[in-house]
Amino acid sequence: MIKAGIMGASGYTGAELLRLLATHPDVKITAASRQQGGENLSDIFPALRGRWNLVLTSHDPKAMGAKCDVVFCCLPHKASMEMVPTLLKGGAKVIDLSADFRFNDAALYEEWYTKHIAPALLKKAVYGLPEFYRARIKKARLVAVPGCYPTGAILALAPLVKKGLIDTDSIIVDSKSGVSGAGAKPTETTHYVEVNDGIKAYGVASHRHTPEIEDHLSRLAKKPIKVSFTPHLTPMDRGILTTAYAKLLKKMSTSKLLDIYRKFYQDEPFVRIFPEGELPRTKWVRGSNFTDIGLVSDSRTGRVVIVSAIDNLTKGASGGAVQCMNVMMGLPEDAGLGAPPLCP
Amino acid sequence: MIKAGIMGASGYTGAELLRLLATHPDVKITAASRQQGGENLSDIFPALRGRWNLVLTSHDPKAMGAKCDVVFCCLPHKASMEMVPTLLKGGAKVIDLSADFRFNDAALYEEWYTKHIAPALLKKAVYGLPEFYRARIKKARLVAVPGCYPTGAILALAPLVKKGLIDTDSIIVDSKSGVSGAGAKPTETTHYVEVNDGIKAYGVASHRHTPEIEDHLSRLAKKPIKVSFTPHLTPMDRGILTTAYAKLLKKMSTSKLLDIYRKFYQDEPFVRIFPEGELPRTKWVRGSNFTDIGLVSDSRTGRVVIVSAIDNLTKGASGGAVQCMNVMMGLPEDAGLGAPPLCP
Amino acid sequence: MIKAGIMGASGYTGAELLRLLATHPDVKITAASRQQGGENLSDIFPALRGRWNLVLTSHDPKAMGAKCDVVFCCLPHKASMEMVPTLLKGGAKVIDLSADFRFNDAALYEEWYTKHIAPALLKKAVYGLPEFYRARIKKARLVAVPGCYPTGAILALAPLVKKGLIDTDSIIVDSKSGVSGAGAKPTETTHYVEVNDGIKAYGVASHRHTPEIEDHLSRLAKKPIKVSFTPHLTPMDRGILTTAYAKLLKKMSTSKLLDIYRKFYQDEPFVRIFPEGELPRTKWVRGSNFTDIGLVSDSRTGRVVIVSAIDNLTKGASGGAVQCMNVMMGLPEDAGLGAPPLCP
Amino acid sequence: MIKAGIMGASGYTGAELLRLLATHPDVKITAASRQQGGENLSDIFPALRGRWNLVLTSHDPKAMGAKCDVVFCCLPHKASMEMVPTLLKGGAKVIDLSADFRFNDAALYEEWYTKHIAPALLKKAVYGLPEFYRARIKKARLVAVPGCYPTGAILALAPLVKKGLIDTDSIIVDSKSGVSGAGAKPTETTHYVEVNDGIKAYGVASHRHTPEIEDHLSRLAKKPIKVSFTPHLTPMDRGILTTAYAKLLKKMSTSKLLDIYRKFYQDEPFVRIFPEGELPRTKWVRGSNFTDIGLVSDSRTGRVVIVSAIDNLTKGASGGAVQCMNVMMGLPEDAGLGAPPLCP
Repeated sequence: MIKAGIMGASGYTGAELLRLLATHPDVKITAASRQQGGENLSDIFPALRGRWNLVLTSHDPKAMGAKCDVVFCCLPHKASMEMVPTLLKGGAKVIDLSADFRFNDAALYEEWYTKHIAPALLKKAVYGLPEFYRARIKKARLVAVPGCYPTGAILALAPLVKKGLIDTDSIIVDSKSGVSGAGAKPTETTHYVEVNDGIKAYGVASHRHTPEIEDHLSRLAKKPIKVSFTPHLTPMDRGILTTAYAKLLKKMSTSKLLDIYRKFYQDEPFVRIFPEGELPRTKWVRGSNFTDIGLVSDSRTGRVVIVSAIDNLTKGASGGAVQCMNVMMGLPEDAGLGAPPLCP
Repeated sequence: MIKAGIMGASGYTGAELLRLLATHPDVKITAASRQQGGENLSDIFPALRGRWNLVLTSHDPKAMGAKCDVVFCCLPHKASMEMVPTLLKGGAKVIDLSADFRFNDAALYEEWYTKHIAPALLKKAVYGLPEFYRARIKKARLVAVPGCYPTGAILALAPLVKKGLIDTDSIIVDSKSGVSGAGAKPTETTHYVEVNDGIKAYGVASHRHTPEIEDHLSRLAKKPIKVSFTPHLTPMDRGILTTAYAKLLKKMSTSKLLDIYRKFYQDEPFVRIFPEGELPRTKWVRGSNFTDIGLVSDSRTGRVVIVSAIDNLTKGASGGAVQCMNVMMGLPEDAGLGAPPLCP
Repeated sequence: MIKAGIMGASGYTGAELLRLLATHPDVKITAASRQQGGENLSDIFPALRGRWNLVLTSHDPKAMGAKCDVVFCCLPHKASMEMVPTLLKGGAKVIDLSADFRFNDAALYEEWYTKHIAPALLKKAVYGLPEFYRARIKKARLVAVPGCYPTGAILALAPLVKKGLIDTDSIIVDSKSGVSGAGAKPTETTHYVEVNDGIKAYGVASHRHTPEIEDHLSRLAKKPIKVSFTPHLTPMDRGILTTAYAKLLKKMSTSKLLDIYRKFYQDEPFVRIFPEGELPRTKWVRGSNFTDIGLVSDSRTGRVVIVSAIDNLTKGASGGAVQCMNVMMGLPEDAGLGAPPLCP
Repeated sequence: MIKAGIMGASGYTGAELLRLLATHPDVKITAASRQQGGENLSDIFPALRGRWNLVLTSHDPKAMGAKCDVVFCCLPHKASMEMVPTLLKGGAKVIDLSADFRFNDAALYEEWYTKHIAPALLKKAVYGLPEFYRARIKKARLVAVPGCYPTGAILALAPLVKKGLIDTDSIIVDSKSGVSGAGAKPTETTHYVEVNDGIKAYGVASHRHTPEIEDHLSRLAKKPIKVSFTPHLTPMDRGILTTAYAKLLKKMSTSKLLDIYRKFYQDEPFVRIFPEGELPRTKWVRGSNFTDIGLVSDSRTGRVVIVSAIDNLTKGASGGAVQCMNVMMGLPEDAGLGAPPLCP
């Protein structure tokens, strides 16, 4: 039985890890922490009563790193890089859900976030998208789980970019996210009455997930790519729907493009390519680790429109983290991730 | 591996069974039907793609009853009693999710529903609440899964009624249900714009779940009980919150009453009694088979207020059905039902 | 043109007053304040841009009381009673939306709230339900707008209580409120993800609106009444649905009871009695000052079930306040309140 | 007092007209029809009880055209063109809310819709966007109210297109609509459980509002324009948020672009240009006739991102229709449209 720890267990990604690992056959949570320890998980998350019975400690990265085989670090960016080096020194493998280790290049991180205090680790950290970096994740001691928006966007665009089918100057990524992506902290942004029965755009031309999307599309294309990325806050708990647009370099039918996608992702356990005429919905992936992808080739405009759906807390965070853990630990990649979406 | 069939697999209770049984270790769905066969389950329920790959047939109770060990009948009332006798003749055990076999007394059924065409089976059918009828369910060939509202109401009130602590003339049951309880059929009642951002009462003093609640409370009390029951349609997918009121025959503190509840349900794997000062929420049981119960004793009015929460599609229908199947088939009662609620 | 001020204009009741008064023919907002002044209303409430152009000041009750004919005080309880005496001294009539002047009896206030610092005003303040206290409101200098729950509950039960038709020991008030009732402040209670797609009870047997309901039902009955009152937080912006239960002293048909209600409220411009077979929905009053009432007499249990719907921000707060102002100022009672509900 | 009729009064656009006209100072609804007459409006729309008391007739375009000064035709496309010629012959001016008279070119209509049976009227009909066609609307006898999506899209892009600031081959229009846009008819698309807590794209590269957007942008640009348009179904009652993208022909700052927009729309009573750093939300226009517009110039990609918000039932349908009526009838353009949005 693998011993896992969760640092920062009281937020939504922590709760989602606890939900998923409750039925994982090979892993046991043996330690969990938050800023102030002392409470039982089942008092913080009454939904988990009867499924978890574990008292939170305060953060002690040295102890947690020493006694766990793997630690999920669910802290916000900046707080995370203060803990991860110590966790690693303790011997544990680390799966970090913050942005702190998502970039190889400290300068890029610092342009969009803040000063990096552990830049040496950036070269060792592996970006946790098994669909593209499986072999490296298998050998990694530190994996950086992708941002929720980049997960949906990169998977939607990768086949086109990798195969050189689109004008890489023409990419638009228009994403619609549920509110859990904004975290458990009560703010004006997350106030029910501000969100319910309405929709808004935010972070236009300035959201921090932009460079992450660009970085990995650029690697796939082997040339620099810039994208226009607009996130929207949508009145739903979970889910990201990404609608991506790009000019096709030459005419291709929807059917032909879908063939390319199906082949590209044929060995992926968590990517579902939709048949022609059907498009993903966030509700059809709710609570699951799937990335659903559909597309339409528009001969009128010469563009392809790709729609992807993920659950931001599952494939977009904690489910992706469990998938990475399975790869790192030599377990079946879908262990603990086999339950279908909750729909309806 | 137990071979299970689902008759009427294209509605919400069918979808929920497929979701739950996808991870059940001992059961395999080998047949599923709807009025018109031919479609693959994964085309009807895109959420299930990659988890189920099974072509629906049209209804053939004889064949399904012969080739399955157990059949879940997810048809509406009336349609159900036309199929169940044949299913049973085929040899399968039957778990019926309609109202058709919930009453022992044909007259009571006919007062609230319609003419009964298989009254002889009523005496053999067992009401599928393992919390009260486990021994009989174990030996049953036909189990009638309780209505969603009665499940939440009976479990909330049973300890008080059974132990004679309340004035049984004073019971009010005020329930709030999600919209999936109204079924998958598009109607004015289920139109998004009619439901969203509002709440309404319906079926006041006339809802068909009333006699079912009364029947089982009366058995527990060993005397006839009548209740005032009001359901409300709430803007949410799933969940029933039941707020029940009754006059205490003598003063008892919240803490004392909670002790009685904890003891009453101490061996139940799916009943969670909340600590004093905390009350259930539907979100904390979403997608799970739990019944959460909390209460407050109000010394000002001499009443006890009990709040219970279930997921109407899980414990209130398909989860309860799987629990019954486990009992009938000699499996661990929580097999396939161990995943925590989806929260958030 | 009547000059009105709003003290505490940056919350939801302030916003609602601004919305309603924007089309009031006889009133002009000439002053508005919040703790820290300086911002324009249209920056705080972008929805109001182009409809209001007014810079908020910090609180100055002396100045506001002197230059306004009437002041709406939208502060929380306690903060309110610190301002109201000064506002009155300035010469303005005051309509207070907090709980501070809703009780005649300081002891009752202090039992449920906090120490009262202006008890002398309690005898002069008039409870702002024109349906029962119109004549006194007309002459009042200080009106206390009722709580949102009491408004829906008292109007639902008044005819039965006043006419002695029910057992006053049997009253249950089960209410379901939208989230705006919890105020604009971000808290765990108002976090979208905590509220969306779920429902919960709160304040069971302890909510501060209980004594207010009891106080006014007791006056109508001319004897002390206690009720069981349970509020629920419902995933919607606005609206309170109240389901009230009581034992009838003698059998009466639904039709007969509706006749009594229609007659009781025949001159009320904002009470709509529903025909037999129809019940109110919160959505049908959204944004309006209506109180909708329907009922069912249940001969099986001898109870009457009354359902009322109001918009908690309109009739339950700012609309009720405007109605009171109209009465106090000798304007047509429905001035500025004529727009139909926003439905859908 | 102008006598107005509504043909097809029982859907959402009919309900919205009734809501708006209830407080219009110069107009009185004297006739309303639906397929089968006989019911009172207040029984179809209980929200309107006490505000309208009018019995619906069955459709009789001759009679309605003769006795009304103006008729709002709220029928679906195809049904509309069967009625409009007769309405006009009766003498009434007609404001049609369907697609039937939105195109000058019958061939374009027939490419996207169906055979046109009154093509002669297409040259006489005026497109009901007063922001661009005010002078012609003033003299028109037949006005075609724009589609909801085109209203938001055209107003968002018009200044850029008209002034030649963008590459017209680069336009993407990504829109998010509330469910009332799908109509009052219960379908799988409008089922609460299908919509709630999720989002989906639909009509990708094939939605019928595409040619309408292109037609009017092309007129403004004086050259043919094609756009990629993707609508999304969002869990909300009302509102359309449009996020539009285009390549700037030369660098311009956000501030400079906003200046251009402010000047372009300076005389428009219902267009609000947001200050730099703020973007529209659907909730801030709910129930009002405003079009809110904000934008960001992205120097990284050379694109401008424009966000517009309208209420699809108000400015996007019935509010726009009332605005047109005011222009046609020589009334103040904002008569009956002065109430602020319902927010929260």
